[in-house]
Amino acid sequence: MSFYEAIWEEVAPVRRAILAQPFLAELAAGSLPAATFQHYILQDSLYLAEYSRVLAIAAARAPSAAGRLEFSDGAKVAVQVEEILHQSFFGRFHVTPAMVATSEPSPVCLGYTSYLASLAATRSYEELIAGILPCFSVYWEVGCKIKPIAVSPNPYDAWIDTYADPGFGEATDRVRMLVDEAASVASPGIRAAMAKAFRTATRYEWMFWDSAYHQVGWPI
Amino acid sequence: MSFYEAIWEEVAPVRRAILAQPFLAELAAGSLPAATFQHYILQDSLYLAEYSRVLAIAAARAPSAAGRLEFSDGAKVAVQVEEILHQSFFGRFHVTPAMVATSEPSPVCLGYTSYLASLAATRSYEELIAGILPCFSVYWEVGCKIKPIAVSPNPYDAWIDTYADPGFGEATDRVRMLVDEAASVASPGIRAAMAKAFRTATRYEWMFWDSAYHQVGWPI
Amino acid sequence: MSFYEAIWEEVAPVRRAILAQPFLAELAAGSLPAATFQHYILQDSLYLAEYSRVLAIAAARAPSAAGRLEFSDGAKVAVQVEEILHQSFFGRFHVTPAMVATSEPSPVCLGYTSYLASLAATRSYEELIAGILPCFSVYWEVGCKIKPIAVSPNPYDAWIDTYADPGFGEATDRVRMLVDEAASVASPGIRAAMAKAFRTATRYEWMFWDSAYHQVGWPI
Amino acid sequence: MSFYEAIWEEVAPVRRAILAQPFLAELAAGSLPAATFQHYILQDSLYLAEYSRVLAIAAARAPSAAGRLEFSDGAKVAVQVEEILHQSFFGRFHVTPAMVATSEPSPVCLGYTSYLASLAATRSYEELIAGILPCFSVYWEVGCKIKPIAVSPNPYDAWIDTYADPGFGEATDRVRMLVDEAASVASPGIRAAMAKAFRTATRYEWMFWDSAYHQVGWPI
Repeated sequence: MSFYEAIWEEVAPVRRAILAQPFLAELAAGSLPAATFQHYILQDSLYLAEYSRVLAIAAARAPSAAGRLEFSDGAKVAVQVEEILHQSFFGRFHVTPAMVATSEPSPVCLGYTSYLASLAATRSYEELIAGILPCFSVYWEVGCKIKPIAVSPNPYDAWIDTYADPGFGEATDRVRMLVDEAASVASPGIRAAMAKAFRTATRYEWMFWDSAYHQVGWPI
Repeated sequence: MSFYEAIWEEVAPVRRAILAQPFLAELAAGSLPAATFQHYILQDSLYLAEYSRVLAIAAARAPSAAGRLEFSDGAKVAVQVEEILHQSFFGRFHVTPAMVATSEPSPVCLGYTSYLASLAATRSYEELIAGILPCFSVYWEVGCKIKPIAVSPNPYDAWIDTYADPGFGEATDRVRMLVDEAASVASPGIRAAMAKAFRTATRYEWMFWDSAYHQVGWPI
Repeated sequence: MSFYEAIWEEVAPVRRAILAQPFLAELAAGSLPAATFQHYILQDSLYLAEYSRVLAIAAARAPSAAGRLEFSDGAKVAVQVEEILHQSFFGRFHVTPAMVATSEPSPVCLGYTSYLASLAATRSYEELIAGILPCFSVYWEVGCKIKPIAVSPNPYDAWIDTYADPGFGEATDRVRMLVDEAASVASPGIRAAMAKAFRTATRYEWMFWDSAYHQVGWPI
Repeated sequence: MSFYEAIWEEVAPVRRAILAQPFLAELAAGSLPAATFQHYILQDSLYLAEYSRVLAIAAARAPSAAGRLEFSDGAKVAVQVEEILHQSFFGRFHVTPAMVATSEPSPVCLGYTSYLASLAATRSYEELIAGILPCFSVYWEVGCKIKPIAVSPNPYDAWIDTYADPGFGEATDRVRMLVDEAASVASPGIRAAMAKAFRTATRYEWMFWDSAYHQVGWPI
């Protein structure tokens, strides 16, 4: 069993909890309040800006040309998606420039991106890419599960299509293979640390949806 | 008005909220439940391990020999304090090896240390050291305020003495001066980013005490 | 006068010395010995692998989305060019797999890429991108100067066309603008450090050609 | 055979070449020209400033508290030694403030420190500390070999005593043990990369003495 197969199975309870989030059920049903989606999409754009930086550091530290290519491309795509959100989704969902100007990352958004950046700053490349992976694999699973059950037409079609797109699935596969390749030659200690990074990032995925649904801000 | 004087004044409401935390009132009164302090001291030891890493990166990027000296010394002292917690405080407060073995950083602890590491990974040196400072200056203020009102004897004497110690105040002053020095030659954009880093870290200080008092764990 | 205009003028003597290198004269004349070009192209491929990493770190630390996009794209393109060298140029110039397998960066190649990586590890983003720029602007100048005087046909046509290509000129312009933008808001101290990084990288450009021409290896 | 024992044996030819350097023979005989030592000591002080940064990054990425303690202490000591050079050795050997002000790292000095910083920026912690070690172990060997054959009195006594001091030997031992510990659990690929880092840094040690003896500056 590969590293990914094992950890993907291990986090199955968290994945089930993600798929059971009311945010996703309402999004599939097209009934998610616009204000909730606005909050989410703003946080998502703040997330992507930081995720792009983290992917770039993975590119800088990848031992193989394949890794450098994948993660520098990922860093570029993350900026491009961030810009598409600003130029297309924001308009469609009535996110005003004022909302953008006053937005700041929620504690969960900042915690998640900072956690990935902390792996980049103080941990091994292997842990870093293990922490990067859930954002790909969880979104790909969410996209694939929601796509067939989503009502049509659905105000959130474009969002759903992005993450159910075969091209996104292929990118997810490539990152997964880089993680599995790294794990296959890693020491047991590093593999354990990779599992911890994957688990922690998957927890943050759940918390990100949950925080968006409840629009949780800073307590002080 | 120096950068520090301005930002210290600006975060006065957060500082007041910190000083009003029940955790600190009960600690001064000697009535804080042992289990609460155990939770706190475990989180503090996890915090220090990561804070030491962040200080070390500040040392690596400091433009002056004074900065390299201060932050490499700070990194060393943080490891030493972490070891003192393990060797002395843990025994005194009945933190068992089993508790240590199963401890993991709380969301707030991980969020705070990761945030500082993210400054190290993706932001300027100036922002990094502005984010580092509140852990010094807030603890020094807390130590100075609690010391004169603490009951005697107090089970938490040693903890209070650590942060009311003049030597700690001097270290705080030196870090503060490095931050002010950096701010005095920084561009307005960097100064604004420094202020944001200082504010965010000060918020995390409040959240750290609050999280410890309520022993908040992971939601999933 | 912009930062770039001033520093480009300041390093004019080094640029003239680069353009006067026998390596380039013989390359334009088509008379450069194949063994010399083989040595150069192998070193260039080793250079690009590391330059890609450095560009990726610039992407990770860029304050603006434009900077993140430019440098993550640059990191990706550097890997792609590295692969084109391996798949096309190496065959054309009879660089054998055995040569590739036993190649190691020369002292100058390792010194240059390491210097840029050291800016990434221990200096400001501004210095980092100032150090990155000469590889763009010097090659663009070399491409533009050689193209009109090169004999035709020339065994090194493809190489010359790469660096005289308007697309490469546009990329150079975009990086130059990012550097000028950063310099325009930087403190005098940072601007001086940027100039030093630009100068040092330009010196390394001269040394890279010189080292390739004389095929200088390790003294021990 | 531990990683260190194997690599130390493998680089024996380079170590013998270092011990055979005229710089060291003349230093032991007390006949080294003052101007040569001035050049060396200036380069050494520039080296230490950067070496301190590299040690600090090793502290930031060390998996164990022992590693964080050792490398943050090393970073601090490097700054302190740098200051001692400025305050004591510079005066004794008539290094004037003007010499200090106009000094810049030689190509070999910059290449060596940049190489170590590049390991910090783009490679694993294991490679980083393997690259850090030769500066300890080569100087300790040099100190131990020169001390018994040095004439007495010798103008360079204080320098010789520094590196023949048992305290320096103990620090060398501790760093060596951290490297061996890391190697013992590393994958074969990482161990090979560690060996390359150790070899490259040892070559730079030879080049540093050689460059100092011939006072080699920049070719352009």
